[in-house]
Amino acid sequence: MNYSYPATAPRWGVFEVTMPGKSDGNPFTDYTITATFTGKEGSVTVDGFYDGDGVYKARFMPSYEGEYTFKVSGSFSDTEYTGSFTATAPEKGNHGPVRVNGYHFAYEDGTPYFSVGTTAYVWPLQGEEMVQKTLEELGKGYFNKIRFCVFPKHYIYNLHEPTSYPYVGTPCPSPTNIDYSNPAALFGVHEGNDWDFYRFNPAHFQQIERCIKAVGDLGVEADLIVMHPYDRWGFSHMKPDQDDLYWKYVIARFAAYHNVWWSLANEYDLLRDKTIADWERYASIILDKDPYKHLRGIHHCTTPYDHTRPWITHVSYQRIDLYKCAELVDQYRIQYGKPVVLDEIAYEGNIDSGWGNITGQEMVRRFWECSLRGGYAGHGETMDVPEANGKLWWSHGGPLRGESPARIRFLHKILCETPGAGLMYRQMSWDSVCGVPEGTRGPARYMIEYYGFGRPNKRTFRMPQGMKFKVEVIDTWDMTITDAGVHEGFFTIPMPSKQYMAVRLIAVD
Amino acid sequence: MNYSYPATAPRWGVFEVTMPGKSDGNPFTDYTITATFTGKEGSVTVDGFYDGDGVYKARFMPSYEGEYTFKVSGSFSDTEYTGSFTATAPEKGNHGPVRVNGYHFAYEDGTPYFSVGTTAYVWPLQGEEMVQKTLEELGKGYFNKIRFCVFPKHYIYNLHEPTSYPYVGTPCPSPTNIDYSNPAALFGVHEGNDWDFYRFNPAHFQQIERCIKAVGDLGVEADLIVMHPYDRWGFSHMKPDQDDLYWKYVIARFAAYHNVWWSLANEYDLLRDKTIADWERYASIILDKDPYKHLRGIHHCTTPYDHTRPWITHVSYQRIDLYKCAELVDQYRIQYGKPVVLDEIAYEGNIDSGWGNITGQEMVRRFWECSLRGGYAGHGETMDVPEANGKLWWSHGGPLRGESPARIRFLHKILCETPGAGLMYRQMSWDSVCGVPEGTRGPARYMIEYYGFGRPNKRTFRMPQGMKFKVEVIDTWDMTITDAGVHEGFFTIPMPSKQYMAVRLIAVD
Repeated sequence: MNYSYPATAPRWGVFEVTMPGKSDGNPFTDYTITATFTGKEGSVTVDGFYDGDGVYKARFMPSYEGEYTFKVSGSFSDTEYTGSFTATAPEKGNHGPVRVNGYHFAYEDGTPYFSVGTTAYVWPLQGEEMVQKTLEELGKGYFNKIRFCVFPKHYIYNLHEPTSYPYVGTPCPSPTNIDYSNPAALFGVHEGNDWDFYRFNPAHFQQIERCIKAVGDLGVEADLIVMHPYDRWGFSHMKPDQDDLYWKYVIARFAAYHNVWWSLANEYDLLRDKTIADWERYASIILDKDPYKHLRGIHHCTTPYDHTRPWITHVSYQRIDLYKCAELVDQYRIQYGKPVVLDEIAYEGNIDSGWGNITGQEMVRRFWECSLRGGYAGHGETMDVPEANGKLWWSHGGPLRGESPARIRFLHKILCETPGAGLMYRQMSWDSVCGVPEGTRGPARYMIEYYGFGRPNKRTFRMPQGMKFKVEVIDTWDMTITDAGVHEGFFTIPMPSKQYMAVRLIAVD
Repeated sequence: MNYSYPATAPRWGVFEVTMPGKSDGNPFTDYTITATFTGKEGSVTVDGFYDGDGVYKARFMPSYEGEYTFKVSGSFSDTEYTGSFTATAPEKGNHGPVRVNGYHFAYEDGTPYFSVGTTAYVWPLQGEEMVQKTLEELGKGYFNKIRFCVFPKHYIYNLHEPTSYPYVGTPCPSPTNIDYSNPAALFGVHEGNDWDFYRFNPAHFQQIERCIKAVGDLGVEADLIVMHPYDRWGFSHMKPDQDDLYWKYVIARFAAYHNVWWSLANEYDLLRDKTIADWERYASIILDKDPYKHLRGIHHCTTPYDHTRPWITHVSYQRIDLYKCAELVDQYRIQYGKPVVLDEIAYEGNIDSGWGNITGQEMVRRFWECSLRGGYAGHGETMDVPEANGKLWWSHGGPLRGESPARIRFLHKILCETPGAGLMYRQMSWDSVCGVPEGTRGPARYMIEYYGFGRPNKRTFRMPQGMKFKVEVIDTWDMTITDAGVHEGFFTIPMPSKQYMAVRLIAVD
């Protein structure tokens, strides 16, 4: 492998320098590699990484168009590599990394980002056919964020082997079932593992990168779950120095992708041998090593993390009540003062557990509740039907089988019409949820009222005198928007006695 | 009218003495009438009452079979009336008044009473055709309790005149609509009323009695709402002495009906000029005047009454959250230490307000949630469809149009199979609600687990080793019970991936 780098890279694209280097000993731990990129706005220094076969790489995401120079040095090579390149206009559809904008999000170019997420924990590790099918579904524009793991997953429906492992070594045999009478079956290290936690398997990380890039090309954020407890190999039970090595490698490889979000964990509180001090240390590594300040969150099972911690950019939440979750978003906003993302509100599906067997209607209802209360919801799907053959979108990606994705896309289209940064909750009646543009004081000039599981035959509005509103009746399930005329003051809108309806009012004078 | 009384009366029936008396002045206030009934177990003294046209009556409900003597005296007559009668065996289906049994109910003969209620606020005052239709529906066994008012009702869908008024006088004109910009339109006294609050209209009370008796004959408890705020005539704004006169008249007339419950109010907290001291005074009148100790409750709109008050026999509750109500029953039990009756959990219907537009499925789901948590739920229906012509079961009775009543009857049949007094909640899993017989300690020999809006394709049970269970899959909506075999220990039951399913386990060894 020769020293190489491209002459140009688009703004918010990945500029990559490839270099030969020392491969004796353990290149993952024995050598240093640091790269500094300098443009008109200043310099950024990042870690490079060993990519196997004597190859080292350093990656950089240019934040501005224009000329850059770089210098790569360290003990990995006796040569210091330097060069220059031009950052060109961003590729079509690349608006830059997502940033926090109050309780909401916007891409770096200022375009508001209304998050409609999904989860497919280990879709990159299910073979090419499933990966392509997943990308095909994501190409339909249902979602603009997907949560997935770097490590493989061990759990119900996840007893088979992943296509690759993150470390050099040998996995334990695939179990044939999970013995629920033995708690270690789900969260313990099984017999027969033999891993070197100081030697990464670059092919595994290359596959994750390929998937980060592929979803990014589709306009989808990659909410990377860096640690999780569903493990039989010991990846959730490594020593602190091994964890830290992993975190640094992950950041060195992935941070230059504009669409990466750092999710420190899925269900951090089930990683029983990690302490809060451990999570805070991982966070400090990100703060130290990620110059692009990608979004940072941490997701719980039963005990929410202290989301007021300054390093947390947004609240990543799992429902903690069987009956209410999206309904609490406006409270969480007050509690934490940050954007609230309900990354897990149960899955459209039919599996045995309540977290995985809600209907499409209930999924969409939770999305609307969450959105109108000024938060952002996440989809997932666990449809265990014969043709799925045990492969469920929730973990494996592949074909979607539920009814909610098209309705979520419909909601997203409406959210994108919000004047301003996003919506906030306004109490308009005791039996509806109402969203108005963030920061609205006094009479709202834009308002969506949603009736959830209720099925009114009419709704009465008491709007300020002297303001005229264009009124639309929205069928959130059948995905229609029906003009209901222009009204003012006290007026009644006929409704079709159906569930999952909304009314939008837009001031026209 | 001559002095008359029957020679016999069935136990728990109404024994009535009819007597002539003074009709000059105001017979409702100017004279006293007291009756004492003496049997082998002791004596009971009650007030008699003026029934119009020079007729006075005294009523008594014999609690035991056997010989009774009585004596009626007071200023209403210069004659003291005495006599004797025999209390015979109760009529078929009359198990006596309902009593509290811990967190549950039982009839006085010991038969458990599993309450499945409904509400039709002013069905006795809608004309004979509606009354008969209501009784026809109640004859189908959907419900065993009905809440209704003594006073007529003014509210949306209730602008027309009732068939009678409780007082002598003239009502205000029927309004044609409710002006929502004027708060007095719903809760204020309209112009044009002219009532004598010291002169009752006996025909009005006779109609209420006829309805109490008719539902009693169908095995249905009459949960009488004695006061309520939905009033344009001033019945909710009377002076204390007028209120007290009303309460005494109501008790003198109705207390001898075995199936009467006293609901002091519907939405007591909306009767804005009544104080807690007023409610406590009404309660003391009941305690003083009702010798049969009928059940006593009081229902709120937004602020629950202090249900720990000793005179309150059971908690009569309205949901105070749009999303959760039945789900809170096990907490209310702990909070109040009494039976919990959710008399208002929203209505199956399609009207504009969230309290009146839930689906039949949601209604039935709330019934199951409530029942398995050891409480009792109440139905109501507000289906505003063209053929209803503005007459909704919720207020007027008449034909039922919803889907829930048959499913509530199915639930009641299952509740009646409970071993013991009733069910209590047991936490078996985080995503189901589970009921076991009240007082179960250690392994349950009877258990119903319900999955609500979830739709599992299977459920796994971890039962104590060495106990065999007959397992049944219950479809609470399609009303089927399917044998799933006998199982023990750790086992999995296939489920049909449908909502509103339950599993019942009954120990067979």
